[in-house]
Amino acid sequence: MFILISYDIPHDKRRSKIAKTLENFGKRVQYSVFECQLTDSQLADVRGRLTALVVPNEDSIRFYSLPKDAVTAMLILGHGVVTHDPSFYWTD
Amino acid sequence: MFILISYDIPHDKRRSKIAKTLENFGKRVQYSVFECQLTDSQLADVRGRLTALVVPNEDSIRFYSLPKDAVTAMLILGHGVVTHDPSFYWTD
Repeated sequence: MFILISYDIPHDKRRSKIAKTLENFGKRVQYSVFECQLTDSQLADVRGRLTALVVPNEDSIRFYSLPKDAVTAMLILGHGVVTHDPSFYWTD
Repeated sequence: MFILISYDIPHDKRRSKIAKTLENFGKRVQYSVFECQLTDSQLADVRGRLTALVVPNEDSIRFYSLPKDAVTAMLILGHGVVTHDPSFYWTD
Protein backbone atom coordinates (compact mmCIF):
# COMPACT_ATOMS: atom_id res chain seq x y z
CA MET A 1 0.00 0.00 0.00
CA PHE A 2 1.28 3.41 -0.99
CA ILE A 3 1.02 5.84 1.92
CA LEU A 4 1.79 9.51 1.68
CA ILE A 5 2.54 11.09 5.04
CA SER A 6 2.73 14.85 5.49
CA TYR A 7 3.19 16.70 8.74
CA ASP A 8 3.22 20.10 10.44
CA ILE A 9 5.11 19.90 13.73
CA PRO A 10 6.00 23.30 15.20
CA HIS A 11 8.30 21.94 17.91
CA ASP A 12 11.83 21.39 16.45
CA LYS A 13 12.88 18.39 18.56
CA ARG A 14 9.56 16.66 18.14
CA ARG A 15 9.63 17.32 14.39
CA SER A 16 13.04 15.72 14.02
CA LYS A 17 11.98 12.73 16.13
CA ILE A 18 8.99 12.24 13.85
CA ALA A 19 11.12 12.61 10.71
CA LYS A 20 13.66 10.10 12.10
CA THR A 21 10.86 7.67 12.82
CA LEU A 22 9.48 8.05 9.31
CA GLU A 23 12.91 7.47 7.76
CA ASN A 24 12.51 3.87 8.92
CA PHE A 25 9.31 3.52 6.93
CA GLY A 26 9.73 5.42 3.70
CA LYS A 27 11.43 8.02 1.56
CA ARG A 28 11.55 11.72 2.39
CA VAL A 29 10.45 13.43 -0.81
CA GLN A 30 10.01 16.91 0.60
CA TYR A 31 10.86 18.58 3.88
CA SER A 32 7.69 17.35 5.58
CA VAL A 33 6.43 14.73 3.16
CA PHE A 34 7.29 11.03 3.06
CA GLU A 35 6.24 8.41 0.56
CA CYS A 36 6.01 4.90 2.01
CA GLN A 37 5.15 1.45 0.73
CA LEU A 38 3.69 -0.22 3.81
CA THR A 39 1.97 -3.43 4.79
CA ASP A 40 -1.03 -3.16 7.11
CA SER A 41 1.13 -4.07 10.10
CA GLN A 42 3.83 -1.53 9.16
CA LEU A 43 1.13 1.13 8.88
CA ALA A 44 -0.20 0.18 12.31
CA ASP A 45 3.38 0.29 13.64
CA VAL A 46 4.22 3.74 12.28
CA ARG A 47 0.81 5.05 13.30
CA GLY A 48 1.39 3.85 16.88
CA ARG A 49 4.89 5.32 17.05
CA LEU A 50 3.73 8.71 15.75
CA THR A 51 0.64 8.76 17.94
CA ALA A 52 2.98 8.40 20.94
CA LEU A 53 5.06 11.40 19.77
CA VAL A 54 2.30 13.77 18.61
CA VAL A 55 0.93 16.57 20.77
CA PRO A 56 -2.62 16.63 19.34
CA ASN A 57 -3.48 20.30 19.65
CA GLU A 58 -0.13 21.45 18.27
CA ASP A 59 0.79 18.86 15.67
CA SER A 60 -0.80 17.64 12.46
CA ILE A 61 0.09 14.47 10.57
CA ARG A 62 -1.91 13.39 7.54
CA PHE A 63 -1.78 9.90 6.06
CA TYR A 64 -3.11 9.46 2.55
CA SER A 65 -3.62 5.83 1.71
CA LEU A 66 -3.64 5.27 -2.06
CA PRO A 67 -3.98 1.91 -3.70
CA LYS A 68 -1.00 1.70 -6.03
CA ASP A 69 -2.97 1.66 -9.22
CA ALA A 70 -5.06 4.58 -8.02
CA VAL A 71 -2.16 6.92 -8.11
CA THR A 72 -2.93 7.89 -11.67
CA ALA A 73 -0.22 10.41 -12.10
CA MET A 74 2.09 12.52 -10.06
CA LEU A 75 3.59 15.72 -11.35
CA ILE A 76 6.82 17.26 -10.06
CA LEU A 77 7.61 20.91 -10.72
CA GLY A 78 11.19 21.81 -9.89
CA HIS A 79 13.46 19.25 -8.28
CA GLY A 80 12.08 16.08 -6.84
CA VAL A 81 12.83 12.53 -5.88
CA VAL A 82 11.13 9.82 -7.85
CA THR A 83 10.45 6.93 -5.51
CA HIS A 84 8.15 4.97 -7.74
CA ASP A 85 7.62 3.45 -11.11
CA PRO A 86 8.50 6.36 -13.42
CA SER A 87 5.13 5.97 -15.15
CA PHE A 88 3.62 7.51 -12.02
CA TYR A 89 5.52 10.68 -12.72
CA TRP A 90 5.80 13.18 -15.43
CA THR A 91 8.22 16.02 -14.78
CA ASP A 92 8.19 19.47 -16.25
CA MET B 1 -10.43 15.10 -9.54
CA PHE B 2 -8.87 15.21 -6.11
CA ILE B 3 -5.40 16.73 -6.28
CA LEU B 4 -3.04 16.91 -3.35
CA ILE B 5 -0.35 19.56 -3.79
CA SER B 6 2.67 19.75 -1.49
CA TYR B 7 5.61 22.08 -1.85
CA ASP B 8 9.06 22.98 -0.57
CA ILE B 9 9.91 26.55 -1.50
CA PRO B 10 12.94 27.96 0.36
CA HIS B 11 12.41 31.56 -0.78
CA ASP B 12 9.90 33.31 1.51
CA LYS B 13 8.32 35.68 -1.04
CA ARG B 14 8.06 33.00 -3.68
CA ARG B 15 6.57 30.57 -1.16
CA SER B 16 3.83 33.03 -0.17
CA LYS B 17 3.08 33.80 -3.84
CA ILE B 18 2.68 30.07 -4.49
CA ALA B 19 0.49 29.63 -1.40
CA LYS B 20 -1.66 32.62 -2.45
CA THR B 21 -2.04 31.12 -5.92
CA LEU B 22 -3.08 27.77 -4.45
CA GLU B 23 -5.64 29.40 -2.18
CA ASN B 24 -7.62 30.11 -5.35
CA PHE B 25 -7.71 26.41 -6.17
CA GLY B 26 -8.13 24.51 -2.93
CA LYS B 27 -7.93 24.24 0.82
CA ARG B 28 -4.73 24.62 2.82
CA VAL B 29 -4.69 21.61 5.12
CA GLN B 30 -1.14 21.96 6.36
CA TYR B 31 1.52 24.62 6.08
CA SER B 32 2.70 23.39 2.69
CA VAL B 33 -0.08 21.04 1.65
CA PHE B 34 -3.25 21.88 -0.24
CA GLU B 35 -6.17 19.64 -1.11
CA CYS B 36 -7.98 20.63 -4.29
CA GLN B 37 -10.95 19.37 -6.29
CA LEU B 38 -10.01 20.36 -9.84
CA THR B 39 -11.29 19.91 -13.35
CA ASP B 40 -8.70 19.11 -16.04
CA SER B 41 -8.66 22.75 -17.12
CA GLN B 42 -8.27 24.01 -13.56
CA LEU B 43 -5.35 21.60 -13.10
CA ALA B 44 -3.76 22.91 -16.30
CA ASP B 45 -4.36 26.46 -15.07
CA VAL B 46 -2.76 26.00 -11.64
CA ARG B 47 0.09 24.00 -13.17
CA GLY B 48 0.82 26.83 -15.60
CA ARG B 49 0.70 29.50 -12.90
CA LEU B 50 3.02 27.55 -10.60
CA THR B 51 5.40 26.63 -13.41
CA ALA B 52 5.80 30.37 -14.04
CA LEU B 53 6.67 30.98 -10.36
CA VAL B 54 8.91 28.00 -9.64
CA VAL B 55 12.72 28.17 -9.72
CA PRO B 56 13.37 24.56 -10.78
CA ASN B 57 16.65 23.84 -9.01
CA GLU B 58 15.50 25.42 -5.75
CA ASP B 59 11.81 24.61 -5.52
CA SER B 60 9.81 21.40 -5.37
CA ILE B 61 6.07 21.06 -5.93
CA ARG B 62 4.42 17.66 -6.02
CA PHE B 63 0.95 17.03 -7.39
CA TYR B 64 -0.73 13.77 -6.45
CA SER B 65 -3.74 13.08 -8.60
CA LEU B 66 -6.11 10.65 -6.90
CA PRO B 67 -9.41 9.51 -8.35
CA LYS B 68 -11.95 10.32 -5.66
CA ASP B 69 -12.92 6.76 -4.93
CA ALA B 70 -9.29 5.74 -4.78
CA VAL B 71 -8.61 7.75 -1.70
CA THR B 72 -9.52 4.83 0.49
CA ALA B 73 -8.84 6.42 3.77
CA MET B 74 -7.06 9.35 5.22
CA LEU B 75 -5.87 9.43 8.79
CA ILE B 76 -5.26 12.61 10.77
CA LEU B 77 -3.14 12.55 13.92
CA GLY B 78 -3.40 15.75 15.95
CA HIS B 79 -5.36 18.67 14.60
CA GLY B 80 -6.47 18.77 11.01
CA VAL B 81 -8.93 20.22 8.56
CA VAL B 82 -11.40 17.82 6.99
CA THR B 83 -12.06 19.01 3.49
CA HIS B 84 -13.89 15.96 2.23
CA ASP B 85 -16.61 13.51 2.84
CA PRO B 86 -15.95 12.46 6.46
CA SER B 87 -15.90 8.81 5.38
CA PHE B 88 -12.51 9.59 3.85
CA TYR B 89 -11.17 10.35 7.27
CA TRP B 90 -10.77 8.68 10.55
CA THR B 91 -9.21 10.74 13.29
CA ASP B 92 -7.34 9.57 16.33
